[in-house]
Amino acid sequence: MSEGDLAGEIRSICEGARRAAHVLAVTGAEEKNAALCEIADELERSMDVVIESNALDLDAGREAGLSAALIDRLALNGQRIHEMAQGLRDVSALRDPVGEVLEGWRLPNGLVIEKVRVPLGVVGIIYEARPNVTVDAAGLCLKSGNAVVLRGSDSARNSNRVLVELMRRAGAAAGLPADAVQLIGVSGRDAAREMMRMHGLIDVLIPRGGEGLIRTVVENSTVPVIETGVGNCHVYVDEGADVEMAVAIVVNAKTQRPGVCNAAETLLVHREIAGGFLPAVWTPLSEKGVTLKADEAARAILPEAGEATEEDWMTEYLDLVLAVRVVDGLDEAIEHINRYGSHHSDAIVTRDWERARRFQREVDSAAVYVNASTRFTDGAVFGMGAEIGISTQKLHARGPMSLPELTSTKFIINGDGQVR
Amino acid sequence: MSEGDLAGEIRSICEGARRAAHVLAVTGAEEKNAALCEIADELERSMDVVIESNALDLDAGREAGLSAALIDRLALNGQRIHEMAQGLRDVSALRDPVGEVLEGWRLPNGLVIEKVRVPLGVVGIIYEARPNVTVDAAGLCLKSGNAVVLRGSDSARNSNRVLVELMRRAGAAAGLPADAVQLIGVSGRDAAREMMRMHGLIDVLIPRGGEGLIRTVVENSTVPVIETGVGNCHVYVDEGADVEMAVAIVVNAKTQRPGVCNAAETLLVHREIAGGFLPAVWTPLSEKGVTLKADEAARAILPEAGEATEEDWMTEYLDLVLAVRVVDGLDEAIEHINRYGSHHSDAIVTRDWERARRFQREVDSAAVYVNASTRFTDGAVFGMGAEIGISTQKLHARGPMSLPELTSTKFIINGDGQVR
Repeated sequence: MSEGDLAGEIRSICEGARRAAHVLAVTGAEEKNAALCEIADELERSMDVVIESNALDLDAGREAGLSAALIDRLALNGQRIHEMAQGLRDVSALRDPVGEVLEGWRLPNGLVIEKVRVPLGVVGIIYEARPNVTVDAAGLCLKSGNAVVLRGSDSARNSNRVLVELMRRAGAAAGLPADAVQLIGVSGRDAAREMMRMHGLIDVLIPRGGEGLIRTVVENSTVPVIETGVGNCHVYVDEGADVEMAVAIVVNAKTQRPGVCNAAETLLVHREIAGGFLPAVWTPLSEKGVTLKADEAARAILPEAGEATEEDWMTEYLDLVLAVRVVDGLDEAIEHINRYGSHHSDAIVTRDWERARRFQREVDSAAVYVNASTRFTDGAVFGMGAEIGISTQKLHARGPMSLPELTSTKFIINGDGQVR
Repeated sequence: MSEGDLAGEIRSICEGARRAAHVLAVTGAEEKNAALCEIADELERSMDVVIESNALDLDAGREAGLSAALIDRLALNGQRIHEMAQGLRDVSALRDPVGEVLEGWRLPNGLVIEKVRVPLGVVGIIYEARPNVTVDAAGLCLKSGNAVVLRGSDSARNSNRVLVELMRRAGAAAGLPADAVQLIGVSGRDAAREMMRMHGLIDVLIPRGGEGLIRTVVENSTVPVIETGVGNCHVYVDEGADVEMAVAIVVNAKTQRPGVCNAAETLLVHREIAGGFLPAVWTPLSEKGVTLKADEAARAILPEAGEATEEDWMTEYLDLVLAVRVVDGLDEAIEHINRYGSHHSDAIVTRDWERARRFQREVDSAAVYVNASTRFTDGAVFGMGAEIGISTQKLHARGPMSLPELTSTKFIINGDGQVR
């Protein structure tokens, strides 16, 4: 396809979404909820077709030599499809954020001003591999009154095509505009790049995937972006910390699910407690298969550890590897975290009131923990009902994003003929 | 200066701001307020120096042939300097947004989650001509705990340099880091473009100026942007509207200050009322020197009007010109506004409850008015205390932006050793 044709096709897809967004913005909660449940039912009714299309992707993936982990992320089966359907039903039961009056006041001249939640409009999502994101993301966007333009990875193209077709069909049967869910199915990177240029047609672009994807979107998008996901998370074990608690938190934060963004990547230990703490934490970590990359002071205590370089402080391993550094105190810990971290989730284990408060104030991250595992940073776990991603930027939303984060606001001003 | 040198210099300015931001983020309200008052005092004490430096810019501007309007925007005098100082004192009296607990809850496992306001970090502002923006913007950023990197226009470079020097000096005397206020004084467009690439060092970029400036920033920035200002605003006069009220609103919205973004640019009139209303509004409009660009139906009623083209529906005149179109009803009015408008401020004049409600819901703009002039869209007039700009995008903030819009949030999670 020529560059002009491609741009035209992407633009026409986005224009369809924009028209649908105008309808969705004034669609009531009952109608949106009914559509989500209809899509859930249709997903379960169409299970065989979905699994067949997914099998094509899996075959192609194996032929292309995808790793077992990636094949697993790509795979759909009966249970996963039921979970996707249940996810939609759960979202339908959440409160509709649209129309919420956030604040309001009356001016001396009698004008009444209200700030009201409205949908963003058209949400673009660029994501990798997992086809369940196709359904989860569309469900959250529809519930919050937004049209969605999806750009999945080429490796899931057959699954995504079938999933989007069935969502459009079921949504339309329930009275939503079919174009409320759009898929950019053209393969290759140019299609994603064109999507990033749709300023005015897409209101926000959310990349979900690895650091490379997110950087590409930030570099190239004229559409406003919400950066998500990269998590170089820290646990700092303070002087005088409860060693048993600190061991439990570090082991949980590193090993409970090492491949996710809220898993810990670096352990910082106060010099005074390092001699007792590091051997205590090493036993359970080594039993779980964790290897360490440590600075000199930590290696003096744990000769089993490998050598850490500057690079390690910046690395999101997403694996059973933990960087370890001995620090002189809270100042050095905070400085390390703010300098090398990704501002995602960071924890202190301490018994000291003042240092806990300083850590909360001075660590510049989306989620700052005192005496708890970083693994809790998640929309569902936080009790927000659902999650479209975890923002690591400061604009618009920070931390887990749910339905309210998929909305904007507008001011409604009611008068009796007031002029200035 | 070579491209590499320039990039290095801009980066070093932004790094200074970033370091200052870490200090400002934990600076208390009393200290910030004292610094704002100290800067206000220093402004008044240094009035002569400021006026001298401004005279250099005015001379250069006249030599370069700037219009009288631009020269006026550029000019500082004793009264304007007093107003800038008073603006800082007013901001110091506003409530500090930082530290506000926006929400909080306890999870079943005992974890307590709080969502707390924090500064954005480093705010970049690229603006045109008016040197009072230098002081106003810096004051709002400091109050909200942010460092600010200012990029004014070359035509105000002497004024801006002196104003920033004075703010840094007075801020430092009051205990703030001097680098909390930074000026990019290098002339030429490359400096602004480098600034737009400072992703990771600048947290948000706010362009304030004409459409060309804003488009350049949107196209080139890797830093998140808040678009401001372009206002193609409408007044729709509904069938059965109170003609006297409608005349007052249209005349006010068009003529009270035609050069600003919340002034009306297009009048839409219901066909049924056009014959009575258009002559009624024409008398006061023509007395104020307004010329009309009208569609055929409107010209049939007002032969004095010029001919409108498609281009006129998209034009922000910022002048005593008004586009006029006769529409068949609410649907056509809403469609016109959503299609041609800039989603800034739009008004309906009506007596009909249902149509008022539909207009509020379906017009996709930052400020939607029923029976009032669009001219009220302004942070100070809205009672928000101050204004850093008016956002016309949907992400992060929409409509007038004040101190809370210069903040982000973080989650603080307090536990007793909880793990997943």
